[in-house]
Amino acid sequence: MTEQKKPLTLIKGHIIEAKSFSDPVITENGWLAVEDGVVQGVFSALPERYAGAPVEDYSDKLVLQGFSDMHLHAPQYPMLGMGMDLPLMEWLKTYTFKTEARFEDTAFAREAYLRLASELVNNGTTRVCIYSSIHTDATLILMEELERAGVGGYVGKVNMDRNSCECQESTLQSKRETLRWLDACDRFSLVRPILTPRFTPSCTDELMRWLGETARERGVFVQSHLSENKKEIALVKELHPDCEQYWQTYDKFGLWTDHTIMAHCVHSDEREQQAMIDHNVLCVHCPDSNINICSGFAPVRRMKERGVWVALGSDIAGGAQLPMLQVLTCCLRMSKARAIATEGLEPFLTVGEAYYLATSAGSRYFGDRDGFAPGNPLHAVVLDDAALPPSARTLTVKERFERAVYLADDRSIAAVYGSGRRIK
Amino acid sequence: MTEQKKPLTLIKGHIIEAKSFSDPVITENGWLAVEDGVVQGVFSALPERYAGAPVEDYSDKLVLQGFSDMHLHAPQYPMLGMGMDLPLMEWLKTYTFKTEARFEDTAFAREAYLRLASELVNNGTTRVCIYSSIHTDATLILMEELERAGVGGYVGKVNMDRNSCECQESTLQSKRETLRWLDACDRFSLVRPILTPRFTPSCTDELMRWLGETARERGVFVQSHLSENKKEIALVKELHPDCEQYWQTYDKFGLWTDHTIMAHCVHSDEREQQAMIDHNVLCVHCPDSNINICSGFAPVRRMKERGVWVALGSDIAGGAQLPMLQVLTCCLRMSKARAIATEGLEPFLTVGEAYYLATSAGSRYFGDRDGFAPGNPLHAVVLDDAALPPSARTLTVKERFERAVYLADDRSIAAVYGSGRRIK
Repeated sequence: MTEQKKPLTLIKGHIIEAKSFSDPVITENGWLAVEDGVVQGVFSALPERYAGAPVEDYSDKLVLQGFSDMHLHAPQYPMLGMGMDLPLMEWLKTYTFKTEARFEDTAFAREAYLRLASELVNNGTTRVCIYSSIHTDATLILMEELERAGVGGYVGKVNMDRNSCECQESTLQSKRETLRWLDACDRFSLVRPILTPRFTPSCTDELMRWLGETARERGVFVQSHLSENKKEIALVKELHPDCEQYWQTYDKFGLWTDHTIMAHCVHSDEREQQAMIDHNVLCVHCPDSNINICSGFAPVRRMKERGVWVALGSDIAGGAQLPMLQVLTCCLRMSKARAIATEGLEPFLTVGEAYYLATSAGSRYFGDRDGFAPGNPLHAVVLDDAALPPSARTLTVKERFERAVYLADDRSIAAVYGSGRRIK
Repeated sequence: MTEQKKPLTLIKGHIIEAKSFSDPVITENGWLAVEDGVVQGVFSALPERYAGAPVEDYSDKLVLQGFSDMHLHAPQYPMLGMGMDLPLMEWLKTYTFKTEARFEDTAFAREAYLRLASELVNNGTTRVCIYSSIHTDATLILMEELERAGVGGYVGKVNMDRNSCECQESTLQSKRETLRWLDACDRFSLVRPILTPRFTPSCTDELMRWLGETARERGVFVQSHLSENKKEIALVKELHPDCEQYWQTYDKFGLWTDHTIMAHCVHSDEREQQAMIDHNVLCVHCPDSNINICSGFAPVRRMKERGVWVALGSDIAGGAQLPMLQVLTCCLRMSKARAIATEGLEPFLTVGEAYYLATSAGSRYFGDRDGFAPGNPLHAVVLDDAALPPSARTLTVKERFERAVYLADDRSIAAVYGSGRRIK
């Protein structure tokens, strides 16, 4: 169900905002005023000026912010949950590159991406920063299907001209196709292009340099991977002996700039973290991927305390969970793994903190302010927890929220609003 | 849907057996012959003697063994997913004891247990070893509802006469109610009683001694908790200065015997593990609980290699996941956490190994042999993976099995057979 934007709507329910990296701010029986798809404000009593406006009544339901999945691989959707017993390199060769290569077939791409977009919406993910494959046409199909479903964000045709088996392009081809793709993106309104060198080992210096120049000339953001595991870090060091640290292999080509997205950063040390802070680089924490591929326990709280901008990603298909509610609880569990591994030195994350990472931290990337701030486009998820187990007493809204985060699946998601319109 | 047992039935599908702690044995397009609810055999071609018998046709679906949840707290079902941010002692005081105390109300117990039993079946859990609360009547209601739903196993009225807030009984009351409960259990056929001292800190020596004697006199098994976290171990040491190790606090009262169930054993050292082996004690690994409560990473592979009998438990509501498919994948993830923490010294578990822990390892407790062995009562789960994402190529049955383990929920469970009858 994708509706048009409405001139003025009031959304009624228990409104749960991630206004900061801490407990959510809850307005019980509140009103969320929306005009032309843009949030006007959250009110505990209805202001007189809105009297008589049409109401979408979610009384006693939970109104959460829409989720932002800030790192995932669209062409790995067909291999979700597969090959999880394999070591990383074998997994890449047996599944990943072969699966991505299939997206040369535009009919297959259409089928997979139609389904992916629908599953994103169904689970309340309203914005993404997403990897496509090297294929320009499949990338445009992905953009079409996301936009049609009402999912906004950034989509990247992948660049890789070395060390990538079936999926490799020549350097020339990579440049030419990137330009063809960028020129074809003007027609989209919800989704925009983002330059996507897969990661340092899969791009030649020439390609990296060209991508850095193109990013600057065209004013396009960049996404890639950083310090995911120790073998990868050693390989990067081998490939770029002039760089002391992994991040510098992006920096030297102009790819380490404001709003650059770096997935993982599991093993980034203080200096690499400081470089993120200095350049307003977004670190995307992908907890399920980190555990499935045995990358390590990312120091999320430590990074947050230091001032690194951190958001969440499903990283399918290293992650086996597309629903951001699952990614959120996986983030909580992995923060507990970190707490165990550090013997409590780094306390685990709370539900409210992880909710912030899954919503506001990502939506900032798109220019929003935290929570349902006036001026933000409406991105919201309505949770109906009535079908969850009977409880032993009346629960507070905060308790219901926490419980729903752990237990709800798409069946509990009664409505989704993306970019100002109802999309589920 | 609970049907009667049928004289002779053939189940047709891809039959996936956990015959050992390794890869499953798969019979593609196989036949599972069942007579009066008892498995006769698995065949890749239909033997002539079965020609003409009625067929339950699950062609191209996956036929798994039913799951055994070997440790969970029924009266914590209403608090599933709640209070996960709290430290253990605060969680117990704020939620656990108060929630369990509500089961004095038999109407509430009926509502909660009816729902719990139905959710177990819906998710393919066909047998349990389950804690009730201290309440005899609620325990009998739990047994009624499990049996009505077709779930078999062992149910324990909890004993605790110290350190347990609202839920505490007097020693006298605990003994008297335990006898009243045991005497009322004869009427059940699928569920049987198991003695359940909550754990050492919540039982006086007098009660423990009496339970040990009762177990011996009545030939009843025992379930409890062991070495879940370090504070608990220190407390036990304080309460029993004569015992060098935690397990000895059970042993000295006759509670450490053949088929005793000990949940957790996260911090059991080699000597404690050896005591489990020597006495045929079952260790129940509860991965989701271990991570939610920050207990630690249990050395599952190490225990298996040494010869400890290990099975899986959801341990709701320390665990927030009732479906054993989720517990199974949580077990895989936690084994990877252990692999990370030991820097690969203890390799992670494979899907096949975790499947064994979730099925055959538990069903042995009930006298079954591994896999769909002839003579076992039929416990089976039929997975229909047709609704999972479109894949990039034709998958092998093993790949489909592994993917389904990660992605399937109750919607993919097309049929469930428990104790020889179809129950979903």
